[in-house]
Amino acid sequence: MRFHTRKLVKPGDLNANGTLFGGAVLAWIDEEAALYSIIQLENKKVVTKYMSEINFMSSAHRGDIIEIGVAVVKFGKSSLTLKCEVRNKMTLETIVTVDNIIMVNLGDDGKPKNHGKTKIEYVKDRIAKEEKNS
Amino acid sequence: MRFHTRKLVKPGDLNANGTLFGGAVLAWIDEEAALYSIIQLENKKVVTKYMSEINFMSSAHRGDIIEIGVAVVKFGKSSLTLKCEVRNKMTLETIVTVDNIIMVNLGDDGKPKNHGKTKIEYVKDRIAKEEKNS
Amino acid sequence: MRFHTRKLVKPGDLNANGTLFGGAVLAWIDEEAALYSIIQLENKKVVTKYMSEINFMSSAHRGDIIEIGVAVVKFGKSSLTLKCEVRNKMTLETIVTVDNIIMVNLGDDGKPKNHGKTKIEYVKDRIAKEEKNS
Amino acid sequence: MRFHTRKLVKPGDLNANGTLFGGAVLAWIDEEAALYSIIQLENKKVVTKYMSEINFMSSAHRGDIIEIGVAVVKFGKSSLTLKCEVRNKMTLETIVTVDNIIMVNLGDDGKPKNHGKTKIEYVKDRIAKEEKNS
Amino acid sequence: MRFHTRKLVKPGDLNANGTLFGGAVLAWIDEEAALYSIIQLENKKVVTKYMSEINFMSSAHRGDIIEIGVAVVKFGKSSLTLKCEVRNKMTLETIVTVDNIIMVNLGDDGKPKNHGKTKIEYVKDRIAKEEKNS
Amino acid sequence: MRFHTRKLVKPGDLNANGTLFGGAVLAWIDEEAALYSIIQLENKKVVTKYMSEINFMSSAHRGDIIEIGVAVVKFGKSSLTLKCEVRNKMTLETIVTVDNIIMVNLGDDGKPKNHGKTKIEYVKDRIAKEEKNS
Repeated sequence: MRFHTRKLVKPGDLNANGTLFGGAVLAWIDEEAALYSIIQLENKKVVTKYMSEINFMSSAHRGDIIEIGVAVVKFGKSSLTLKCEVRNKMTLETIVTVDNIIMVNLGDDGKPKNHGKTKIEYVKDRIAKEEKNS
Repeated sequence: MRFHTRKLVKPGDLNANGTLFGGAVLAWIDEEAALYSIIQLENKKVVTKYMSEINFMSSAHRGDIIEIGVAVVKFGKSSLTLKCEVRNKMTLETIVTVDNIIMVNLGDDGKPKNHGKTKIEYVKDRIAKEEKNS
Repeated sequence: MRFHTRKLVKPGDLNANGTLFGGAVLAWIDEEAALYSIIQLENKKVVTKYMSEINFMSSAHRGDIIEIGVAVVKFGKSSLTLKCEVRNKMTLETIVTVDNIIMVNLGDDGKPKNHGKTKIEYVKDRIAKEEKNS
Repeated sequence: MRFHTRKLVKPGDLNANGTLFGGAVLAWIDEEAALYSIIQLENKKVVTKYMSEINFMSSAHRGDIIEIGVAVVKFGKSSLTLKCEVRNKMTLETIVTVDNIIMVNLGDDGKPKNHGKTKIEYVKDRIAKEEKNS
Repeated sequence: MRFHTRKLVKPGDLNANGTLFGGAVLAWIDEEAALYSIIQLENKKVVTKYMSEINFMSSAHRGDIIEIGVAVVKFGKSSLTLKCEVRNKMTLETIVTVDNIIMVNLGDDGKPKNHGKTKIEYVKDRIAKEEKNS
Repeated sequence: MRFHTRKLVKPGDLNANGTLFGGAVLAWIDEEAALYSIIQLENKKVVTKYMSEINFMSSAHRGDIIEIGVAVVKFGKSSLTLKCEVRNKMTLETIVTVDNIIMVNLGDDGKPKNHGKTKIEYVKDRIAKEEKNS
């Protein structure tokens, strides 16, 4: 799993208990899954369909840095299944894991649409290919 | 299940697809579970430990009103298990359901602590009892 | 008056004094009045026209839970007058009351438009009626 | 009345109707009243106690600029009464007026405390005076 | 330089260090430059093109009030160059200065467009002129 | 330069022009510089002291994904100089570059303090070293 996005835990991210608000973590996971899918499927019309169970294994505090990792579990026809881990960047302690997040590729009519992708692609390869073909 | 909190879907709650951002829904569920637990357990130090799988069954749009329902599944010793449904207030169409959300009651040391609660209580009954006893 | 929406007071809702920011309360009241009107008038184009005087009777702190109650004062032709109370969910202490909030029903041209409503309706009754008629 | 603070109406400030969210305006007024009072009373512990009726006379749209004016109505013993107008910066059309906003000066114990102020002061005069006395 | 907009530093504006988040200050400067340009150029399609170096000379804390000053450096053909200072309203201590902020006037096609302005104008003069001409 | 953090451009990030708000980009850069410094200097008390000139070379739109790259320019005694690039993840088009961002390491007294670091360190190496030593 590759960890990209990092977040600095700020006062506005805390719950009444003074620790990282669970809802903030969930919103960050959903955004990371969405943007990862948009990159892979080359389509901005992607929505979250399902998340498997979520374990909050540890928390975080003001000033902590967390990082979010995403990996592909499976390419479906009109879907993409991801897994995700959120961890403390400094201690590598896991905060949350989600084993399956199913994202669905939509057409302009808002209905599921085949995306034609079967494996992870890298943006630099796509660009190299475009340049070669042009 | 009783539905209390309502939200008006505003432009800032939308994803790039123009529909309700999944992360916003998850953050709303987590906050509702937290405040419901704080009310029942009479303790502000409550954290989210676990959420079972989450199905996004339909979406919502700008100007839609959604409502969030919470019910108790089980009172544990230091935990409270809830279930939750988010639905469209006008059509009653389900948006998301979560069957199990485990909230943990913490002591001042940040560790799980028995809450001594075994059934749902209503604030008005608590206040009536206090007045009787005083 | 029926209390629906609940809010957990989080660090981002506090003023420089460490108590609940008055502006946050006012924004919550306005949103609750708007969504209540949208439900009753079955029209998303509803705007706030007037609020009568606002008394801040007590405050709230981080981790407090507040609830917002709304009731109908009067159905006008193109307007709906509401009253509102915000109180602490745990102590039932009143935080703010507003006796009259006038909401206006707009047409597609952005001008006031008759809404044809004269009494409170419940969504379940509307849906039952629709099913009967279909 | 002197107009200081200006706001650019952005997508996140809009209601479901696509016009400026009333709650955002109210939150801006409250913040402006609070900061004006902090400046005059030279005390950060200031809270909103009362707002007289609020008329929404016109609205605003994405990209509009609004400005907020505040003036003193009366210096009380532990309070400061202000009035406020929000208007469109480009057309000078009034959006909202509030005739009386009562702000209360608090001591460290959170209770009203005499502020000893009887008239508007300017920061530059205060600084000049301090320099003269030192 | 004239200082207009004022901000009250609230918990949500703080960094992990408990002082004013540099990013919040930069966002405030950018918004102030944008709205100042919209007023002067009478065009809502204005974007930030360049900022010269930014010195953070002092910080601010919860409950501090800051004010933002903007002045014109130069009217270009399709651009407007501004300078900006952010300072503590109570002590007049400078927090940040930016010597050059270049804003660009765009046409409906999103490309730079001559704005035809050569000097600062005041809204009241514009309105007086319009009334005279009508 | 290594690009880590990614952002999905959402409606709340847009300016009145419908493109990515410059202030949002600046806030993202500042946060990324802060968290990168906290990781390298192993100290949460880090503040932004200086940014060199900022060029907005292109913009972004709703649904675009941007990524933020940071690299070290120089380790000072109590400071760390970084450079930063923000670019469109899909096209690799540069949005903004900043050549020098000076972050300062603070002690508990809020004054600059030597950090003792002279080169980039990786968290996994630190953890491996700790385990070896224990």
